[in-house]
Amino acid sequence: KKNRMPELHQNHPPFGGFLAAPLEKLKRIYVSPGPIYDPEGRKEDYWGLRKCLYNAGFRPGDLVMNTFSYHLTPAGIFLDEACNGIGCITVPTGVGNTEIQVKTMAGLKINGYIGIPSFLLSLIKKMEELGYDTAQDLAMEIALVAGEILSPSLRKELNDYGIIVRQSYITADLGGVAYECPGENGMHISDDLHIEICDPTTGEPLPVGGVGEVVVTDFSNECYPLVRYGTGDLSALDADECACGRTSYKLKGIMGRADEVTKIKGMFVHPRQVDEAAAAFPETVEKIRVVVTREGVTDMMTVEIRLKKGVEGTDALKASLEEKIREATKLRGTAVFVPEIPEGSKKIEDKRNWQ
Amino acid sequence: KKNRMPELHQNHPPFGGFLAAPLEKLKRIYVSPGPIYDPEGRKEDYWGLRKCLYNAGFRPGDLVMNTFSYHLTPAGIFLDEACNGIGCITVPTGVGNTEIQVKTMAGLKINGYIGIPSFLLSLIKKMEELGYDTAQDLAMEIALVAGEILSPSLRKELNDYGIIVRQSYITADLGGVAYECPGENGMHISDDLHIEICDPTTGEPLPVGGVGEVVVTDFSNECYPLVRYGTGDLSALDADECACGRTSYKLKGIMGRADEVTKIKGMFVHPRQVDEAAAAFPETVEKIRVVVTREGVTDMMTVEIRLKKGVEGTDALKASLEEKIREATKLRGTAVFVPEIPEGSKKIEDKRNWQ
Repeated sequence: KKNRMPELHQNHPPFGGFLAAPLEKLKRIYVSPGPIYDPEGRKEDYWGLRKCLYNAGFRPGDLVMNTFSYHLTPAGIFLDEACNGIGCITVPTGVGNTEIQVKTMAGLKINGYIGIPSFLLSLIKKMEELGYDTAQDLAMEIALVAGEILSPSLRKELNDYGIIVRQSYITADLGGVAYECPGENGMHISDDLHIEICDPTTGEPLPVGGVGEVVVTDFSNECYPLVRYGTGDLSALDADECACGRTSYKLKGIMGRADEVTKIKGMFVHPRQVDEAAAAFPETVEKIRVVVTREGVTDMMTVEIRLKKGVEGTDALKASLEEKIREATKLRGTAVFVPEIPEGSKKIEDKRNWQ
Repeated sequence: KKNRMPELHQNHPPFGGFLAAPLEKLKRIYVSPGPIYDPEGRKEDYWGLRKCLYNAGFRPGDLVMNTFSYHLTPAGIFLDEACNGIGCITVPTGVGNTEIQVKTMAGLKINGYIGIPSFLLSLIKKMEELGYDTAQDLAMEIALVAGEILSPSLRKELNDYGIIVRQSYITADLGGVAYECPGENGMHISDDLHIEICDPTTGEPLPVGGVGEVVVTDFSNECYPLVRYGTGDLSALDADECACGRTSYKLKGIMGRADEVTKIKGMFVHPRQVDEAAAAFPETVEKIRVVVTREGVTDMMTVEIRLKKGVEGTDALKASLEEKIREATKLRGTAVFVPEIPEGSKKIEDKRNWQ
C-alpha cells in the first residue's frame, strides 16, 4: 500500500528493497512527498505516457505548456519527455508565475496544456483580466489534465473556450495508469498493467462495478516491479464496450481516497505531514487538523490549531506555523487558532464539492 | 547584444528572426526573463554540456542533485539531461525547499551538486543546523557551479568540506561556453565556439588580455545560429599554456556586466524589470532603484522607492510593491521608502563584495 511506502523506504533506504536494478541503471530519482524516493529507469518511454498523450489528441508539432512542477516530484519531467517523445514542442513552465505563463500562452500561441484542470481555468481568467481577447489570443485546443478531480461544470466551462479536456490517471510510481478516450466516459487501463479493485480493509478483489482501492501490478517495469500495489485511490471497473472501439476495461474515474491522504492543489497531503508541522511546536500546539474547501476552482487549505493552555495565539506564532506547514506540505495554508477541535474528527477534513 | 534581444524578439515574435529551423524541429522553448524565448533543438547534447560536466569530474553512476530551476528558464533541464547523457543519475530538486533538499542529500548519499555556489554552502549549513554530522552524512565530492561569481573564500570553505568546486560559464542561448579544468585557473573555451573580447561601446575586438564584453559566434547550432552575439558579460582572454595540457584559450572568469543587467541569486535582473514593477503604480511611485548587497553568501535585494508627493508609505503599499517586484523579477526583495534617490544613480546598484 502506498501509504506504507514512506515507512518501508525509511526502514530499508533508499527504496525499501523494491528496486530490482542496481542504482547505476537509473536515470533519475524523484523525491515525492512522504517522503518516498521514486526511481526512473533508462528505458525509452519508461512511464508509458506517450500513448496517454497521443490518445488524448496531442500530435507532432503541437506547442504544449506543461504546468506540473519539474522539481522533486516526477510529473513535470516525465510528461515533458513523453510529449517530446511524440514530437510535440514543450514549454516547461511549472507552477506559479501566472502572469508570465499567460503572456507565454498568448505570445507563442500555445495549443496544448498539461496540468491540473483548475489552473488552466485560472490562466484563462487571468488572460481576460490582463485585457487579452480570448477569441483571438487563446489558441488552446487540447488539455491533458490529472492530479485533481475534474468536475462536470469545470469541464464544460473549459469546453466553452473551445478546449478539449481529457483526463488521465497518473501516479509517481507507476506513470500512466489509465486515460480517457474521446468517449469521455471513464478511463481505459494501460495495456502493461493489471488492475484489481479491492476492498480497502481486507484486500480482497471486488466484482466488476464494486467501488474499492485501485491495486496495480506492473508487468513491464524491470527497475521497480510493483506487484499488487495499493494506490490508495478509490475507483470501480467498467467492463462495458466503449464507443471508441477499445475493448480494455475502464476505470470509472477516481472517486476519492481509501485513506486520509488527500490531494490539495494537485499535491498529496498525508496526515503525517500535518503532524510533522505540529511536532515543530511541542510547547504550543495541542491539536491540529486540516480543513480543505474550494472557492470557485481553487482549493483552500485551512489549518485549525488548538493551542496548549495559557499559550497566546500571536501573529508571529501564526506566521511561523504557516511557514512550517508550507515546508511540510509544500502548500500554502492559513493557520487559524480555534478553541476546540471535535473529538474523533479526521486529521484532514475534505469539505470540497465536486459538482 | 543580449540586452536588445527582448526588443528584437517582440518586434518579430517569437524568435526575432533568429530561428533558422521550422518550429516543428524544436524540442522545447524556454522563457527566460526579459522576456526572451530560447529555442532548443533536437540534436543530441544540443547545449554542449556533457563535456562540461565530464571535464568537471562527473562520472557514470554519480548521484547528482541539480538545484537549478527547471521551470521557464533552461538551466535545470539542460544540465539534467547532460548529466544523464554521461551516465549520472540526477535528482531534480530545483530551487527552494531547503529542508527536503538536505534530507535528500543525506538520505541518498548524493555525491554531485549542480547549482549556484552559495546555495551549496546554505545546504551544508542547514544540514549542520538540523543535527547531521557532515563528516559522515555529507557524501558530496564534486560541484559544478555557475550563475554567480565564485569568491575565493567561498571556494575555500567548500573545499574544506571535501568538495571539489569547478566553475562554468553557461548561458541560456548558447549553453556551455567555457569551463574550468583541474588547474582552476580560468575557464577553457568550448571547441564549437569562436569568442572575441570586444569594447562594449564600439564593438571592436580587443587584444588578448584586454577586459571587454564576451562576444560569441556559434558554429555548431543549426537552429539558432548566433553570430557575434554580445553576451553582456565582461571577461578577458588568457592565451597562456595550461597545466592540464589543453591548448584552447581560456576566459579569465566573469568580471561583471557590460550593462546594468545584474545577476542576483543566480537570476538575471534587468533595469527594465524594475521599471515594469514600478509602472504598476503610476499614481504612487516617483522613482525606484535596486540595491544589491550580500550577507554572508546570500544575495539581498533592497528596492528603494521614492513616493510621489503626498503619498503615504503604508504597509499595504509596501506589500503590494514587493509582490509586484517578485512577479517582475521572480526574486523576493525588500521594499523600503526613501526620501531621495541620488540623481544619476544606476537603476541596479551592485554593492556586493566578491573576496
